[in-house]
Amino acid sequence: MMKRYIFGTPILDTESVIHKPEPQQGDIPYFGCEKGETGVKFQYTMEKDKPVYGLGENVRGINKRGFRYVSFCGNSSMHTESLERMYCAHNFLIVDGETRFGVFVDSPGRVVFDIGFVNPDEFIITSELTDFEFYIIEGNSLREIVRSFREIIGQSYIPPRWAFGYQQCRWGYESSNEIREVVAKMKESGIPLDSVGLDLEYLDNYKDFTINPKDYADFADLSKELKEQGVRLVPIIDAGVKIEEGYNVYEEGVEKGYFFKDKDGNDFVGAVWPGRCHFPDFLRPEVREWFGNHYKYLTDMGIEGFWNDMNEPTLFFTERGLKEAMSVVDELRDSQLDIPRRRRLLQAVNGMANNLKDYQSIYHQIDGKMVSHDKVHNLYGYNMTRSAVEAVDKILPNHRILMTSRSSCVGMHRYAGTWQGDNYAWWSHILFNLKLMPSLNMCGFLYTGADLGGFHTDTSEDLLIRWLQLAVFTPLMRNHSAFNTRRQEPYLFQKKDIMRDVIRIRYMMIPYLYGEFVRCALESDMLFRPLAFDYEGDEVAAQIEDQMMVGDALMIAPVYTQNARGRYVYLPEDMMMVRLSSPEHREYVQMEKGHHYISAELHEMIFFLRTEKMIPLAEPGLNTDSMDFDRIELLCNVKEQGSCTVYVDDGFARDYENPAYYTTIQTVRKDGRLSVEQNGKKLSLVITDCQNQKL
Amino acid sequence: MMKRYIFGTPILDTESVIHKPEPQQGDIPYFGCEKGETGVKFQYTMEKDKPVYGLGENVRGINKRGFRYVSFCGNSSMHTESLERMYCAHNFLIVDGETRFGVFVDSPGRVVFDIGFVNPDEFIITSELTDFEFYIIEGNSLREIVRSFREIIGQSYIPPRWAFGYQQCRWGYESSNEIREVVAKMKESGIPLDSVGLDLEYLDNYKDFTINPKDYADFADLSKELKEQGVRLVPIIDAGVKIEEGYNVYEEGVEKGYFFKDKDGNDFVGAVWPGRCHFPDFLRPEVREWFGNHYKYLTDMGIEGFWNDMNEPTLFFTERGLKEAMSVVDELRDSQLDIPRRRRLLQAVNGMANNLKDYQSIYHQIDGKMVSHDKVHNLYGYNMTRSAVEAVDKILPNHRILMTSRSSCVGMHRYAGTWQGDNYAWWSHILFNLKLMPSLNMCGFLYTGADLGGFHTDTSEDLLIRWLQLAVFTPLMRNHSAFNTRRQEPYLFQKKDIMRDVIRIRYMMIPYLYGEFVRCALESDMLFRPLAFDYEGDEVAAQIEDQMMVGDALMIAPVYTQNARGRYVYLPEDMMMVRLSSPEHREYVQMEKGHHYISAELHEMIFFLRTEKMIPLAEPGLNTDSMDFDRIELLCNVKEQGSCTVYVDDGFARDYENPAYYTTIQTVRKDGRLSVEQNGKKLSLVITDCQNQKL
Repeated sequence: MMKRYIFGTPILDTESVIHKPEPQQGDIPYFGCEKGETGVKFQYTMEKDKPVYGLGENVRGINKRGFRYVSFCGNSSMHTESLERMYCAHNFLIVDGETRFGVFVDSPGRVVFDIGFVNPDEFIITSELTDFEFYIIEGNSLREIVRSFREIIGQSYIPPRWAFGYQQCRWGYESSNEIREVVAKMKESGIPLDSVGLDLEYLDNYKDFTINPKDYADFADLSKELKEQGVRLVPIIDAGVKIEEGYNVYEEGVEKGYFFKDKDGNDFVGAVWPGRCHFPDFLRPEVREWFGNHYKYLTDMGIEGFWNDMNEPTLFFTERGLKEAMSVVDELRDSQLDIPRRRRLLQAVNGMANNLKDYQSIYHQIDGKMVSHDKVHNLYGYNMTRSAVEAVDKILPNHRILMTSRSSCVGMHRYAGTWQGDNYAWWSHILFNLKLMPSLNMCGFLYTGADLGGFHTDTSEDLLIRWLQLAVFTPLMRNHSAFNTRRQEPYLFQKKDIMRDVIRIRYMMIPYLYGEFVRCALESDMLFRPLAFDYEGDEVAAQIEDQMMVGDALMIAPVYTQNARGRYVYLPEDMMMVRLSSPEHREYVQMEKGHHYISAELHEMIFFLRTEKMIPLAEPGLNTDSMDFDRIELLCNVKEQGSCTVYVDDGFARDYENPAYYTTIQTVRKDGRLSVEQNGKKLSLVITDCQNQKL
Repeated sequence: MMKRYIFGTPILDTESVIHKPEPQQGDIPYFGCEKGETGVKFQYTMEKDKPVYGLGENVRGINKRGFRYVSFCGNSSMHTESLERMYCAHNFLIVDGETRFGVFVDSPGRVVFDIGFVNPDEFIITSELTDFEFYIIEGNSLREIVRSFREIIGQSYIPPRWAFGYQQCRWGYESSNEIREVVAKMKESGIPLDSVGLDLEYLDNYKDFTINPKDYADFADLSKELKEQGVRLVPIIDAGVKIEEGYNVYEEGVEKGYFFKDKDGNDFVGAVWPGRCHFPDFLRPEVREWFGNHYKYLTDMGIEGFWNDMNEPTLFFTERGLKEAMSVVDELRDSQLDIPRRRRLLQAVNGMANNLKDYQSIYHQIDGKMVSHDKVHNLYGYNMTRSAVEAVDKILPNHRILMTSRSSCVGMHRYAGTWQGDNYAWWSHILFNLKLMPSLNMCGFLYTGADLGGFHTDTSEDLLIRWLQLAVFTPLMRNHSAFNTRRQEPYLFQKKDIMRDVIRIRYMMIPYLYGEFVRCALESDMLFRPLAFDYEGDEVAAQIEDQMMVGDALMIAPVYTQNARGRYVYLPEDMMMVRLSSPEHREYVQMEKGHHYISAELHEMIFFLRTEKMIPLAEPGLNTDSMDFDRIELLCNVKEQGSCTVYVDDGFARDYENPAYYTTIQTVRKDGRLSVEQNGKKLSLVITDCQNQKL
């Protein structure tokens, strides 16, 4: 079922796969394979109209067929259809059809996937490195192939329960008092809030593990004070370490030789937010340990969550790039600047950022050898985050923390989640958010979500509402925006009551989402699944790209079009529609398998409960700390009998399999009424019988 | 019904409106109005959920509600949702609701339309100029309001019939022999072709009204030779005139003082494709006459079609901008280039193009006064194109030419069509193409279409096929792409037979499309109408943004999603679905009012024929010249009786109302069979009775 092939002698173990089968000899099945000096090319002829799933965080559809994608972690925030790569490198795909198999390219370098782009039926994988590992994964169903893959890459990261609460963030919270104000206004408006994300402003001049001495001087107090209100701070950490005399992280790194080098063995210099920086060589275990231990500076102030950013790593410019650009400028400035020269000028200046020449001039020390960065580029973000998690796990044993990273490859899913990068206030990015969920889940990234309302450009009220309605279901539910855009805290809008109620619906759903999340992590399952994964053989379901199965019991179908007050939904089986505008205002409509047009006004959202399924709900509070998860409303769509398992831990424990956290509930319909039996942890149960509660 | 208000003393008559009612005194109805030194602000509170239509060429939906739009002709090719302005300024809108009215801001300067963006119910118009005209248009229906508006702005441009044929274009046809090769390969592949668009390569160093002496030396022969094959050349003309000693257009313009000036009265210098250029002051009639007469250079070589480009006008840079950028570079280059400084550097270099400071430093001579360009910016493209058309109309009297312009404001619709600018090979741009059609039609721009396959970035086979399927119905059907992208001539693809058949379907449809086009031009009607315009009161129809009424008899519903093999369609009444994969392979399915999911494989397209309607079809040929438009197949969806009018002229005549061009056809069903009666020009008719031809 699982076949591993080794090409050449890989530079290092990427540690994407941690349970490795014995390598196979002989030819790779399915693919033609051509080895050359400049890489290895794999070719497979796809079946007509059959989909290809996967690639984790990348552009376009759930079915990846019809485009060319690149795995080489990048930082381009214009997530358009023609962008070929995003921040991550997630090289797992499933080719569907009569012949069906999974493929994983375990390479830390650049890989290109042409999935019927140049030629509609040809699937071409090109690995720039000639030394790497390659896996073929077979199985009886799409879900089984995913499970097999997930089992070799190891269990997904599980965040603390509070990470399922609403997070407010902004690039531009200028002071601790502004944070206090945001928290107070959320509370005043009755809008639940579990955490506030801190962007660069909390830092002293963009220096990791420092505090802005002027505007955030009382950071420790702030952290303590907010936590007493059930609100946690989630600071950002960047990959680059500012070059500054007297700055401890810089000085230690230089002294210990922990930064990655240029070709002459000097610490490499690249500019990011702090200006000139060095960069920890996270591929070395001792560097990971050293850098990770610095997070203690923040955990000691009560911090339990982080987001690791700019770890592709982004390089705004280097001395080399700046010099090259300036020499182009000097060459051209006094010329009759014609159009080709103008293009060269713009390319020189704009091409300073994330330039391949710079990546090629960085060196890592691997097993005593100097290896140029471009050959291991995709491992950087992964190992930065691993550094943090391995250290914090020791600092706070038996306590889960919130950890996300912008850049990653497969393997990082064991350590953290990922947010979906710097998107835009575009309606198409709501749908894109949805489409990214299952492909990320396939690679083990269960804890994920997008910047709600859009990071770049001004949001609008309706956009934010519709996006929140989708985000009710995404494990990471974070509203985040850039400094030069319209503020988008929910309480600022006229229709803030709608936003409040949507967020309250999220809190109501936490028992289901959290329980299913833990199950999916433990069972190597996907929380978000395209309909094709649950209804194999249903040709219509196979084409649906704007609905999703969420957990075992639900299907979602968000409205993602401006001014729309409804949408088409395909039901692959009979289901109960739940249309709701708040936890308290719900409508249940029994619907039949097939196509439906369903109305949903701006304040209304819909989801679908499968037949004979039940979901546990909670009474929403202003934050998860204040909620009673032992009191459960069981929303039942049971005709004859149903069962479900409710997972309730303390929100931090790591012994997920402890039977004390589980309650299994059976319901049976007798004489029209539901009788209930629960086993395990005793819960206070209220039954809502959708079948008998039609409005 | 039509109310005109004059604010201050407008600098000039924009000539957007040519049939002006007497101005009104007193307050403007509907709007609150606030006059200030820096402009005039209009405020209207919209009814909940009621749509706003219009704005011609601008981003987002058919219903413009929920965003902020700017009228100030720009050139940004990234047509994303957050772009606020495109190449045109089309200031006509209809506010729908219990209270319904049209509004037109007749200003040549910057106008901002906030349609429920900052505040969901507020519609705010801000005119930067304090001197302009303002119209309120009332009527009993959406279509009537459009008709009233169109009547005051004058009859729309009608192109020759060959302009309804397929046009192949490419930025990068390097020589006349390459053009010959393209034409030959189209013919070999049986793909109809009426014209080839010529981008910059045909010019001698980007100079208007010159011919590349090396690669296009035999231009006149090429033009003649191709026309004999039924294929016409359509060259590009740019707004900027290269500064070059000995170049006649430059020297004449300088000598006559026909270029627009800088503040010191010198000819303004801005760089575009040719490098440093001067720009004709098209706002002066004598300049229009002079520049327009230069088109004779090309018409003398048999040219009958043009596209006017870069006439926003685009300025890549000016000496001022270059100097400013270089001084920023010099200031920053030796500094510790930190992040704010880096941003300044990038802004300085990238901000050279289309800089407002440059527009403010250009001066026009209007009624003896110097007027800065920013105050009349939106008139430039309009008057460039007017210049061409007024001259060519004299050069070729009684002969229609193909003319399009990238930039325009209302008024230009009388002279030319518009292509929709430099789009991308994005699936979302298929839908965007569709959405632009009705709003452009509202402003009188009937002859329009988008660059099929996408101008920027590499296309794919499926994208181009689906786009062509939509473009079967858009009057301008042009495949165009940029020099650094994948070639996209249909014959280059594996599935070229599908493309050929789609283009053949277009040719089959020409009698209907051309006849309806002429009718819409003469009757001030819209060829493309949102369903809301035909089915007022239908709440579902009012929300549909991906279907369209085309002409009197059809509704279209293109597939615009990658890998989709079907789509949802809403029928506002019973209709006959026509599903076809070539002119010869058609299927007719009677469908009932309501929601449907309809399958359409990649090679299949669908449209819907209304009940009791008939459309005239032709036998497709390899070009329109070779087709016999007097032989008509009448596709009838007639239950009891129907009638239609078929328009057949010679493809060039301007006497559109000549009864010799019209045939009215009546069909009546008797004993299950259709009997036919025709009056007027005698056509050879074949009847296809959909009602009796179900597959």
